[in-house]
Amino acid sequence: MDLSHILYFIDLTGTFVFAVSGVTVASRYNVDVFGASVIGFVTALGGGTVRDVLIGATPVNWILNDEWVLAATVGIIIGLFVTPVISQWKRTMFIFDTIGIGLFTILGLEKTLQLGLSPLIALMMGTVSAVFGGVVRDVLVNRVPLIFRKEVYATACIAGGLVYLFIGLFTENKLWPLLVSIGVVITIRRLAVMRNWSLPMPKSSRP
Amino acid sequence: MDLSHILYFIDLTGTFVFAVSGVTVASRYNVDVFGASVIGFVTALGGGTVRDVLIGATPVNWILNDEWVLAATVGIIIGLFVTPVISQWKRTMFIFDTIGIGLFTILGLEKTLQLGLSPLIALMMGTVSAVFGGVVRDVLVNRVPLIFRKEVYATACIAGGLVYLFIGLFTENKLWPLLVSIGVVITIRRLAVMRNWSLPMPKSSRP
Amino acid sequence: MDLSHILYFIDLTGTFVFAVSGVTVASRYNVDVFGASVIGFVTALGGGTVRDVLIGATPVNWILNDEWVLAATVGIIIGLFVTPVISQWKRTMFIFDTIGIGLFTILGLEKTLQLGLSPLIALMMGTVSAVFGGVVRDVLVNRVPLIFRKEVYATACIAGGLVYLFIGLFTENKLWPLLVSIGVVITIRRLAVMRNWSLPMPKSSRP
Repeated sequence: MDLSHILYFIDLTGTFVFAVSGVTVASRYNVDVFGASVIGFVTALGGGTVRDVLIGATPVNWILNDEWVLAATVGIIIGLFVTPVISQWKRTMFIFDTIGIGLFTILGLEKTLQLGLSPLIALMMGTVSAVFGGVVRDVLVNRVPLIFRKEVYATACIAGGLVYLFIGLFTENKLWPLLVSIGVVITIRRLAVMRNWSLPMPKSSRP
Repeated sequence: MDLSHILYFIDLTGTFVFAVSGVTVASRYNVDVFGASVIGFVTALGGGTVRDVLIGATPVNWILNDEWVLAATVGIIIGLFVTPVISQWKRTMFIFDTIGIGLFTILGLEKTLQLGLSPLIALMMGTVSAVFGGVVRDVLVNRVPLIFRKEVYATACIAGGLVYLFIGLFTENKLWPLLVSIGVVITIRRLAVMRNWSLPMPKSSRP
Repeated sequence: MDLSHILYFIDLTGTFVFAVSGVTVASRYNVDVFGASVIGFVTALGGGTVRDVLIGATPVNWILNDEWVLAATVGIIIGLFVTPVISQWKRTMFIFDTIGIGLFTILGLEKTLQLGLSPLIALMMGTVSAVFGGVVRDVLVNRVPLIFRKEVYATACIAGGLVYLFIGLFTENKLWPLLVSIGVVITIRRLAVMRNWSLPMPKSSRP
């Protein structure tokens, strides 16, 4: 099993986990099973979709490869019927979610670089891939996006992307930068949750 | 008057009806005539726009053909100035709206198939064409999209699309599958409204 | 310093001002510095992004030219750290904002015309360039877009765009139509704010 197979497996697993979490969030907002399914789908595939539309890589990725739709669909079904009764999953889900955003960041960054776009844009598009599914989910359930309010989530992605770009200056190898930068994302995110870190509010915020 | 003329006529009529209904919904949300017009426009053309952006068929359809903008504009004017005083229209509007979503589903599905994409994606894009105008409308007036909460609306589109794909396995003819599948959409939607059907809520919903 | 340099300078200045105003609005909505930054970015670049996606001009403009991202970034930093302490800026900001929307309208309109699309679509896309950044900003902070509720803002853009198209019928020159139409936008907007103009509500609005 070589690197590209491992990436492919984690990518689909991340999509699956995002779909489960999207359905779980949606279920708290007075929606029916269709609404929860659409929101699960958007959470899983929305980040990559926004990235692909912005960089002009359309049709977007999941439209050309049915596996992504299937991974999201399995996640939605699990989210609708299984999650409510198995709450011990929470820890496992958190681990896969964190690996998922790390990987989504680097995959989005690499895809953007390979189109010949600048590292600055690649860093932004990597972060968009990882977090915009959740942004669209929150817009659909009519709340201010969670990552705009708390959780050092996008910050972890940006830090991981910067580390990846930095190591890339010194090596042609893709595997080590990937592993190290995903490690950075996981570490920052874990520490943030454990120590309840949050970003400051803007100075001009109402008291 | 051959099939393509009939489709063209129903497509423009559907666009018109969606614009009227968009303005009518918007008018309940403290917006001015400009806001109501934009929301009418988005309701009428948003579904096809999201579909075209996802499948990479840009510029989107209404940008290349002014008739769609004109059909939407007429609908907006009617919605702003005429509908409030003619409430008997409601029944007629419901009929055209239902024919409209049926047709939008099949047109979106066919357009996607003709780009060489899979039947699964075509079914999704057909449904997106029919319902995402309403989703964007609801996001703009700041409420959780109606079709995520009630009405067996998207379900009717999905069922119609499945029937269309299924009949298509047995015939090259396009007209009969179209008529039958639009009939399915209309029947399910009428029954759902008459009998007050709704989809179940996810198991994990708060009580 | 020739015309294209002046346009370039005003375009970047408009982007900067929009970013400052986006951060300022976001800061009232209980978001952290990351959220405020994303919202500043979206306010500054969202209008042109929506336009480019609709007309199929992807990758969108700011992805191909890092200056736009940098102009927005400087605006975000000023918005986060400087604006709160310098309230005299308000008047200067208003002037640049108004010049900005005027210029964004005409630039968007010209870009659309140059792709061979119709004047009607060009007028719509010019207005979208100027106002949709604010629409997406408002959706993200979870309120009905301001320009749908008050301010004769989009109306000023539409009027300016119409004047630009009209003068263009009589001259090949681009500079005079530009100056006159931006003048129209500024005048209408100033008068609207001074005299507290607003558009009527739809007839069907709830009392």
